[in-house]
Amino acid sequence: MSVPSLPTATTIQVDTRGAVILEEESPDTRDSRGIYLPNYIEPVSHIAVDIGGSLAKVVYFTRSPHPPGSPSIAATRGSSTTVSNLSTPVSASPPEDVSLPLEPSPPPLFAKLNYKLNGALTPAVLDPQNGNNGQGVHLAPPPLASASVSLPDPLDHSRLNESLLRRVSVQHFPGGQLNFEKFETEHIEECVAFVRALIERSAKLNGVSVAEMRGGVKIVATGGGAHRFYELFEHELFVEVRREDEMECLIEGLKFITLIPDEVYYFSDELIHSVSHPYHLLHAGVLERPSPDPPKYAVTFVENPTPQLPCLLVNIGSGVSIIKVNEDGSYERVSGTSLGGGTLWGLLSLLTPATTFDEILELSEKGDNAKVDMLVGDIYGSDYSKLGLKSTMIASSFGKVFKKNGTKGSFSPEDISKSLLYAVSNNIGQIAYMNAEKYGLDRIYFGGFYIRGYAATISTLSYAIRFWSKGTKRALFLRHEGFLGAIGGWIKNIGEGQRGMPLPGKEDEDAPA
Amino acid sequence: MSVPSLPTATTIQVDTRGAVILEEESPDTRDSRGIYLPNYIEPVSHIAVDIGGSLAKVVYFTRSPHPPGSPSIAATRGSSTTVSNLSTPVSASPPEDVSLPLEPSPPPLFAKLNYKLNGALTPAVLDPQNGNNGQGVHLAPPPLASASVSLPDPLDHSRLNESLLRRVSVQHFPGGQLNFEKFETEHIEECVAFVRALIERSAKLNGVSVAEMRGGVKIVATGGGAHRFYELFEHELFVEVRREDEMECLIEGLKFITLIPDEVYYFSDELIHSVSHPYHLLHAGVLERPSPDPPKYAVTFVENPTPQLPCLLVNIGSGVSIIKVNEDGSYERVSGTSLGGGTLWGLLSLLTPATTFDEILELSEKGDNAKVDMLVGDIYGSDYSKLGLKSTMIASSFGKVFKKNGTKGSFSPEDISKSLLYAVSNNIGQIAYMNAEKYGLDRIYFGGFYIRGYAATISTLSYAIRFWSKGTKRALFLRHEGFLGAIGGWIKNIGEGQRGMPLPGKEDEDAPA
Repeated sequence: MSVPSLPTATTIQVDTRGAVILEEESPDTRDSRGIYLPNYIEPVSHIAVDIGGSLAKVVYFTRSPHPPGSPSIAATRGSSTTVSNLSTPVSASPPEDVSLPLEPSPPPLFAKLNYKLNGALTPAVLDPQNGNNGQGVHLAPPPLASASVSLPDPLDHSRLNESLLRRVSVQHFPGGQLNFEKFETEHIEECVAFVRALIERSAKLNGVSVAEMRGGVKIVATGGGAHRFYELFEHELFVEVRREDEMECLIEGLKFITLIPDEVYYFSDELIHSVSHPYHLLHAGVLERPSPDPPKYAVTFVENPTPQLPCLLVNIGSGVSIIKVNEDGSYERVSGTSLGGGTLWGLLSLLTPATTFDEILELSEKGDNAKVDMLVGDIYGSDYSKLGLKSTMIASSFGKVFKKNGTKGSFSPEDISKSLLYAVSNNIGQIAYMNAEKYGLDRIYFGGFYIRGYAATISTLSYAIRFWSKGTKRALFLRHEGFLGAIGGWIKNIGEGQRGMPLPGKEDEDAPA
Repeated sequence: MSVPSLPTATTIQVDTRGAVILEEESPDTRDSRGIYLPNYIEPVSHIAVDIGGSLAKVVYFTRSPHPPGSPSIAATRGSSTTVSNLSTPVSASPPEDVSLPLEPSPPPLFAKLNYKLNGALTPAVLDPQNGNNGQGVHLAPPPLASASVSLPDPLDHSRLNESLLRRVSVQHFPGGQLNFEKFETEHIEECVAFVRALIERSAKLNGVSVAEMRGGVKIVATGGGAHRFYELFEHELFVEVRREDEMECLIEGLKFITLIPDEVYYFSDELIHSVSHPYHLLHAGVLERPSPDPPKYAVTFVENPTPQLPCLLVNIGSGVSIIKVNEDGSYERVSGTSLGGGTLWGLLSLLTPATTFDEILELSEKGDNAKVDMLVGDIYGSDYSKLGLKSTMIASSFGKVFKKNGTKGSFSPEDISKSLLYAVSNNIGQIAYMNAEKYGLDRIYFGGFYIRGYAATISTLSYAIRFWSKGTKRALFLRHEGFLGAIGGWIKNIGEGQRGMPLPGKEDEDAPA
C-alpha cells in the first residue's frame, strides 16, 4: 500500500483559538453540535459531504448577525461532568445528569434545516458591490479581524480592497459556526434536498439570486459514495463538485478536530468498570460524588489539546478501517475488519424488532449478555486462573444459544443486542490493539458513527484496549466521531474559494504586528 | 500468564511407525476415522474424554483378533486425491469424488458402539492367570513385540513375567486401533452411556467381570467440562477419573497427531481460489484433471511429517484459543476470541431453520454472501485500488441487511449462513495471522470442531492467512482436528496403567538390541 505524504498540521488554515463546542437546543445527537470559531473570519464557499456505506455526513460553515447557541455545559465544565446516567441514553436534561446526550429520533428535514440555520454560507465571490450591501447577512469586522489581516499579495490589490470593503460594509457576529448534519445513504435524496435548501436560504440571507449563490458554492465530496453520487450532486444542485480521497480526509479531519478543546475524551478505568457493572454502580452506594478525585467516575475531556500524532485511527463505520498516522501526518491504512457497525446493525435488524441503530443501542443497554454468551465460568465452573481467564470473561459469544434437536431457546432482543454489541466492540478493540502494538503507537482514536456516544460501546472498546495492552494503552474518543471525513473534506478546501487571499490562523502568530 | 514447561516430543511413548488412517465403513465424519498403529503393542487401560463447551470428545485404544478396516483411500493415495466435490458436503462415495467425506447425521448410540467396536480395551492389570486365558480377546505377540521389549526394571521381575505370559497366551491382530467418538456436551449422559457400554463390552471380550474391568480402566478427563463433570463420571461409571489440564492436552495431542502420515493437509492457492469461485471451477472447463501438476486443485496431504514445532495452534471450538508452541514443546496461550463456532452456531440457529451444525454448513455452501454483505464495490463502485482493496472484498459483513424505516429485507438462510461463515472464519484468520507475525511463526495449525472439513471454511481460513501474510504463511489443517485435547489426554496417560513396565516407541530405537 502506498504511503501518501500529507500536508503537516501547520497547513490547517482555520484559526481554532477560542473554539467552543455549542450546546444546541436541538434534539439532535451530541455528536452533531456546532463548533463556534470566534477567530475564524474568512469567507467559506464550500459544503463537505462524506458519503459512507450507511450514512452521508455534511459539514458547512455559516455566519450570522445573531450570537451562536450557548456553549455546551459539558464542554465548559470539562472533566468535572458526572456520568451517572451514562449507562442509559439520555436526551438533553439537567446538567448534572448529562454528559453525552443522545437524540430520541431525527427531526424532519426542514425542521432540521430551519432550526440549525441561524446563518448563511458566505462565499467570497459574492461581491458586496453587486447590489447586496445591507440586504444580506450583516457582516461586521470581528474583533480580531483588523489585527489578523496579513499583508496581501502585492499583485492583488483590487481583490483586497473589495474584500475589505465587503467586510466593513456588513455586520455579523464575530467568527462563525461549523455545522454538522447526517443522512442515510440509502436516502441520499434527503441529503441533496438539504444542501439545496441550504444554498437557497443562504442566497436569500445574502440577498443574491440562487444562481449567483450556486456559482459561489462548491460541494466537496468524499467517502466511498463520492464516486457513486458524484453526478447526482452535480446534476441536482448545479454546483461544482470536487472529489477528495476518503482516507486523506479522515486524517485531515482528525488532525483538525483534535485541536478543539473538550473534543477528545476518554473513560477512566473506574468509569469503565462502573459501566460494565451497573449494578455495582447503582447499588453499592460507595460512589464518591462529589469526589475529591472527580474524574474517577466521569468522562475525562481533554481541555488543552497536545500534539496528537503519531497515532492509530480506528474508524468504525459500516466496516472498520485502521489507519496508522505518522508524526509528519503521512498515513497508511494498515488493517481493517468487515465486522463493524453494518454487521451489528444488519444482524440485529434481523434478530430484534429494532428499526434504527439507536433503538438497537437502547435495547442493548437493558440486556444481559450472560444469558446468551458462554462465559469461562459456564465451561470451567470457575476462573481458569492458570491462564488468567476470569469466570466472567466471554468464552463464546452466543455460545448458549444453540440447543440440540432443534430446541431453540427463547432469547430476549435486549440480551441478544448486548451480546452482539460486546462481540463486535471487543473484536474491534482487540484488532486495534494488535495494530497499535505492532506499530508502537500509544494513542488510539476511535472514530466513526458506530460509537454514537453509547457508554457500553465506549466502555467495551476502552476495556479491550486496557485488557490487551495490560493497561499501557488507552482508547481515545471524539465528540464529532462520525464527521472526521466530512471535516477533512471541508478543511482541505479552505482557502480555495478565497482566491489568493492570505489566510489567518496559526501563521498569524508569527506575522509582524 | 504462566508458561508451563511440558515434556518434549521424545516422551511421546506410542510407536507411530506404520500408522495409517482407516477408511471406515461408518457414516460418521471423516474426522473420526480410526488410526491403526501396527507397532504399538502395549496394553492401554484408559479412555480419554475432552469435554468442551459444546462437544465431548472420546479417544480410546482397542485390540482385536480381527484385522482393522481397510486403510483410507485418501490416506493411501495421499496428495493425488482430487477434490471436485469439495464445495459440497459428500458422504462416503466413489473414491475419485471423495477426499473429506462428511456424515449425514450421527448414528444412534448403540449402533455406533456396535459398529465401531471390533476390539476391546486391554488393561495391563487383567491378569492372564486369573482364569481369563483364552477366554477373552486372543492376544498374540505382534511381529515386532519381541524385538521392541526393552530391559525391565530389575525390581519388577514378577510383573514382567506376568506380562510376558499374558502376551504369549493370547492372540490378536498386530498393534491396535485408536478410536474417536463425539457427543454433545448438553447430552453428556449419552457420552457416559457410551463409555459404560464400552467398558462392559470390553469386560465380556476379555472374559472378566465388569467390576474387574472397571478396576483396570481409568477415565482421563480434560477440557472445560472436566471440572463440571468430574463427579458425574466417577459416580456413574465407578472408575477412577483423572483430570488433565486442557491446554497441555491440546499441545500433546498436536505433537502426536502431526506424526501420523497424511493427517496434516493444506489447500494450495489454486484450490483456495477454485473453492472461492465455484462457478469458475465448474464452468470454465480449464481444470487440469488429470493434471501434470496434481496438487493444484487437490488437497495436499503431508505424507512424511517433519518436525512441526515451533508453531501456532488455533483451536476453534465454541470459542477460540490461540497458543504459541515453542520448539521445546513449552507453550503459552497468547490470544483468543469469543467469536468462534458457538457464535456461528448460535446466531444461525436463531436466523435459519437449521438444527445442526452440519445443516448450517450445508446451507452456507449454497449461499451467496454478496446478497448480504456490503462489498468494496458496493460502496466505491469499483476497486479502491489506491488502498489495494478489491471490489469483491467484504467491506461490511451483513452491511446490506439494514433498511431504513423498518423495511426489513428478505434474506435467504443460505446467504445469511455463507456471510456469517465468512465473517467468523476471516476474523479468526486475521487474528491468527497477527499472532503468527508477532511471534515469528510460519506454521499455523487450525484445530477444533468448527472446521469440520468444510471446504468453504478451510478455504476462507487459508485465504485469510495468505492475504494477511502476503503469501508468506500457510494455514495447516488436521483430519482429526476436533480431537487434539482428547488425544493429548490419552497420550499423557500412556504408561500409567503399565505399572513401571518399560515402554516401546521412540526410546527403543536408542535401546540396546
